[in-house]
Amino acid sequence: MDWRIGVIGTGAIGKEHIDRITNKLSGGKITALTDVNPENAKSAASLCGARIEHSDKDVINAPDVDGILVASWGSAHASSVLAAIGAGKPVFCEKPLATTAGDCKKIVDAEMNRGKKLVQVGFMRRYDRGYLQVKEILDGGKIGKPLMLHCTHRNMSVGENYTTDMAVTDTAIHEIDCLHWLINEQYVSAQVLFPRATKYCHPKLRDPQFMILTTESGITIDIEVFVNCQFGYDIECEVCCEDGVVKMPEPAFPTLRYKAARSVAMETDWKCRFADAYDVEIQDWINAAKEGKVKGPTAWDGYLAAVTADALVKAQGSGRVEPITTGPCPDFYK
Amino acid sequence: MDWRIGVIGTGAIGKEHIDRITNKLSGGKITALTDVNPENAKSAASLCGARIEHSDKDVINAPDVDGILVASWGSAHASSVLAAIGAGKPVFCEKPLATTAGDCKKIVDAEMNRGKKLVQVGFMRRYDRGYLQVKEILDGGKIGKPLMLHCTHRNMSVGENYTTDMAVTDTAIHEIDCLHWLINEQYVSAQVLFPRATKYCHPKLRDPQFMILTTESGITIDIEVFVNCQFGYDIECEVCCEDGVVKMPEPAFPTLRYKAARSVAMETDWKCRFADAYDVEIQDWINAAKEGKVKGPTAWDGYLAAVTADALVKAQGSGRVEPITTGPCPDFYK
Amino acid sequence: MDWRIGVIGTGAIGKEHIDRITNKLSGGKITALTDVNPENAKSAASLCGARIEHSDKDVINAPDVDGILVASWGSAHASSVLAAIGAGKPVFCEKPLATTAGDCKKIVDAEMNRGKKLVQVGFMRRYDRGYLQVKEILDGGKIGKPLMLHCTHRNMSVGENYTTDMAVTDTAIHEIDCLHWLINEQYVSAQVLFPRATKYCHPKLRDPQFMILTTESGITIDIEVFVNCQFGYDIECEVCCEDGVVKMPEPAFPTLRYKAARSVAMETDWKCRFADAYDVEIQDWINAAKEGKVKGPTAWDGYLAAVTADALVKAQGSGRVEPITTGPCPDFYK
Amino acid sequence: MDWRIGVIGTGAIGKEHIDRITNKLSGGKITALTDVNPENAKSAASLCGARIEHSDKDVINAPDVDGILVASWGSAHASSVLAAIGAGKPVFCEKPLATTAGDCKKIVDAEMNRGKKLVQVGFMRRYDRGYLQVKEILDGGKIGKPLMLHCTHRNMSVGENYTTDMAVTDTAIHEIDCLHWLINEQYVSAQVLFPRATKYCHPKLRDPQFMILTTESGITIDIEVFVNCQFGYDIECEVCCEDGVVKMPEPAFPTLRYKAARSVAMETDWKCRFADAYDVEIQDWINAAKEGKVKGPTAWDGYLAAVTADALVKAQGSGRVEPITTGPCPDFYK
Repeated sequence: MDWRIGVIGTGAIGKEHIDRITNKLSGGKITALTDVNPENAKSAASLCGARIEHSDKDVINAPDVDGILVASWGSAHASSVLAAIGAGKPVFCEKPLATTAGDCKKIVDAEMNRGKKLVQVGFMRRYDRGYLQVKEILDGGKIGKPLMLHCTHRNMSVGENYTTDMAVTDTAIHEIDCLHWLINEQYVSAQVLFPRATKYCHPKLRDPQFMILTTESGITIDIEVFVNCQFGYDIECEVCCEDGVVKMPEPAFPTLRYKAARSVAMETDWKCRFADAYDVEIQDWINAAKEGKVKGPTAWDGYLAAVTADALVKAQGSGRVEPITTGPCPDFYK
Repeated sequence: MDWRIGVIGTGAIGKEHIDRITNKLSGGKITALTDVNPENAKSAASLCGARIEHSDKDVINAPDVDGILVASWGSAHASSVLAAIGAGKPVFCEKPLATTAGDCKKIVDAEMNRGKKLVQVGFMRRYDRGYLQVKEILDGGKIGKPLMLHCTHRNMSVGENYTTDMAVTDTAIHEIDCLHWLINEQYVSAQVLFPRATKYCHPKLRDPQFMILTTESGITIDIEVFVNCQFGYDIECEVCCEDGVVKMPEPAFPTLRYKAARSVAMETDWKCRFADAYDVEIQDWINAAKEGKVKGPTAWDGYLAAVTADALVKAQGSGRVEPITTGPCPDFYK
Repeated sequence: MDWRIGVIGTGAIGKEHIDRITNKLSGGKITALTDVNPENAKSAASLCGARIEHSDKDVINAPDVDGILVASWGSAHASSVLAAIGAGKPVFCEKPLATTAGDCKKIVDAEMNRGKKLVQVGFMRRYDRGYLQVKEILDGGKIGKPLMLHCTHRNMSVGENYTTDMAVTDTAIHEIDCLHWLINEQYVSAQVLFPRATKYCHPKLRDPQFMILTTESGITIDIEVFVNCQFGYDIECEVCCEDGVVKMPEPAFPTLRYKAARSVAMETDWKCRFADAYDVEIQDWINAAKEGKVKGPTAWDGYLAAVTADALVKAQGSGRVEPITTGPCPDFYK
Repeated sequence: MDWRIGVIGTGAIGKEHIDRITNKLSGGKITALTDVNPENAKSAASLCGARIEHSDKDVINAPDVDGILVASWGSAHASSVLAAIGAGKPVFCEKPLATTAGDCKKIVDAEMNRGKKLVQVGFMRRYDRGYLQVKEILDGGKIGKPLMLHCTHRNMSVGENYTTDMAVTDTAIHEIDCLHWLINEQYVSAQVLFPRATKYCHPKLRDPQFMILTTESGITIDIEVFVNCQFGYDIECEVCCEDGVVKMPEPAFPTLRYKAARSVAMETDWKCRFADAYDVEIQDWINAAKEGKVKGPTAWDGYLAAVTADALVKAQGSGRVEPITTGPCPDFYK
């Protein structure tokens, strides 16, 4: 018996999830959907045969909808997620959970008041095989406690509407969620350095940036964010521990011997890089839901990400080390 | 609307396919199954809720069965596949298509007489991302025509019931199918050398073996088959062309710096190594079937594999170069 | 005709240079040596057949000595180097040039007053093939201007007498010299972060440390210094440029497939890691001297290293970003 | 005190050795030289200040010549080497020792009659760090006995005067010497396969070739010889043993991330690839000679190489497996 899903927001990422659920994954089925743009909704409906509803609330409250997938604009997320919690239905919300830490906190509070975990945030990297392999080694304890993380997040290039703060809110946001999960710690401070700027910079963009986060136990995390690196989509994560160092594998491509070089292709697109992770993420959401559970990144993780991003953006402006104070993780989310 | 599948043979591999179709893939559903062992059948039925039938013919002829998946013992394949062709239903048959070249030929003839492609043989390597990446580079033409292939097929170890000929029929059989697909050519000769034997050999097993196949245009393929290599499950494929060399990637694992070495884990189990390929293979079978098509390795490929394996086994005994004569590929299969 | 060399200080590194010049390199010959420890001097003399002199001045002024190699304790360097300049003889001085920036400056001034370059400082990394390959790519311009450098300097372990400041003065000192040469820029600021400490720390040692240097044009350099990393001697240098990233190669060792891993050995000892660089360095010194020249790291480079190290040590204590002000490089040294 | 060397033959390779001994290595000195071409001799003499002699015999018998380096045309080698043995002087002879197995045997007999090892053959690969690292692992025994070797010898391209047999006598000759040293065994059979020919073939050249040698204990060695591979000078050597596989490292170059690929440069020239090996080889010859010894590849090794090459050339023509019968290695050479 397929689990029935209602989709709110059927733009690019929404449509991809609809296609995934309909044609690749097992056990889920889109029964209703909505979009502020009627053309979008129509085109999405034709992909999966779902009914078009007038509003997010109509989708959420439809009796043939067991769970909600929110893929609308970020600023619309909070309202839909709160309504889903109100309806007591599991809700998968694409990142960000909400555009302000305050709204994220409201969702956390609403979910805790409801007394049941319902929210999963769409941080798909936790489902990437490479990160999972690294986490398995770390959790195994063989190489001791983590002391430092060295990470890169490099994109080929970005458009002119991409501004300095988006290096945090659109780009490093993935590391923000993924890294604290990897090492099981919360962040305590944020700092941002601006190295020499690339000639490919735009007037409103400082690029690259070098971000430094520290954690409760003192782990130092550096993240090179370089969104006009020209050569590829390049995500690296190395964890330096007391007895060894582990580094996430590069995407697998053949080795080519050609014109005096041995070369291996690189990803150039985040969609290809994390295509498998998206599949595993949504399958995991469906499988857990069918057992009455919600797993994956929680509303608390969404809140942490928002607070940490705020501190990094503040650090971009101040040039100083900014504190990150979220309070301890509630037992509800442990 | 799910495509309805009947399964014949619910041993290890059969059960894996049932689990895959039921819990991971999209668009397929097991409605009926059978096994000579009633316990096997019961346990498989409980996995997927399918009805147990008394015989392969009952499964094949059931009105709620759209396609057949054959995963019984190799010697039972031919009869089931021929019956499925008789019923005009698509049939996915685990390798081997049949245990003799003669039986494979019967299937080819039956399918051609029926006038419609119905048979897909379960050579999953063609769905492995690494092989597909290599094929894409070869077909792209950038590095010219293939001249030589260097391959290894290494297993940790095998049981005492694994004999010299099984290095061909159970092990190299995967290379036999995959490599001629990779380079779009049929084989013309086979030779087998016996290097110095490992101390881990069994009385009835020569190990390692070094097999050499040549193709219509003269491409030379060498395959090291080493089934007690002790260190891992290690599948390599390098294609040396006129302007460059391409080599299939190693499975991706983190790099670990530890105790004076940088190391990367290796697969030790073929199931893990090709788990993704199995998923893609069966999903592809279902997707094609829903469009009224059969893709993937054909009955002709199954026949070629049988004839080639026969020549290699003969070469093991004769120490000579043995011819492989299959005749040209019928247009029906092109 | 061999170039005649006098050696001041015949401890470990001094003896290695004597052996190198006597048994491996071409064109040089040790004619005189001295050491405060008579046993050391005797044992060194027996290696190469040189005469033992009573003091550094005797060596410097001996008529059969064409050039001086200083390998005494760091605190004795300045006096010997100044005397060699006074005598107008080329002098190779092991790092550090002097133990204070002030003494380094005296040597710079003395050499400029003398009007002839005579001093080469023993920063051997500039002669390492890997660094030279990276520099060649950077200087070639193909990947644009450097923006960031990510480096590691990891040692297996250090003794209890190794203190926090020595992470700068003994360890990072090599990066300090080598990196500004690599990118042709002087440093302007220094910062040191203390990540979570390893359990292998000693009471007087914070380990690891994360050092950040910036340059005139804004290039940001991060250096992980980790002297109890347990797993190897691991020197990495990656330069991130506008159009690409270049990373120094790992030392070459065979790939071993064994026990479910592909592994490559790592160096565990700095002497092995840079053995070739030492040979090339000293050979280069001899070859240049025979042509009446002095090449390699200059007294000015020695002075820069001292000033930069001072700033890093200050930053260890202050927790702040400390300025590095050396003034512009005199034309004499360009 | 420098060891005094006379050089016979001052063409390309001769001049390189002269330069090496004069300007890079320690302990040796060219005192006399000769060449059939007076211009060559003059130019070589100006490099090192040596005296020009009229004939090889004059060089060999000169009282100020302690050892002989033969770098003349291959067909002139035997006569010079025999004369050097007659004079009781150590002689380093570039490969081949002689152009026929018969002449090689004469040298072996002459040396054994003289009762003292005097001859070193210029197979420099034994001095390559990569091969030495592989040998150390094999000799260590950790991965058990060798069973198979997979090797490649690839050149960018060759001129029109390079013929099919030269793939053995000029190219694979290096593997012939190096591999039996690596595994401490003599060869017993030779076979040559001709894969599909590259479009870059010349009329008198079959390219690539796939050579197979077997040894006393049954080890199977395959060597891909591909002299118009277009992409680089690529020497690979992998040894598959009972408990693991070891592969020689690739030459070390930086990793470049650029235009959607991670790439590492390849050597394109054998001189660069083995430059270090040549240095170590000649230094080792000088050092051993000063201790009254001759090490390295012996006259017997030169004889083995000639016999093995003959069998491979015969196998090129016959298409069959040809025996290699050298008889056991005399105790004198063990």
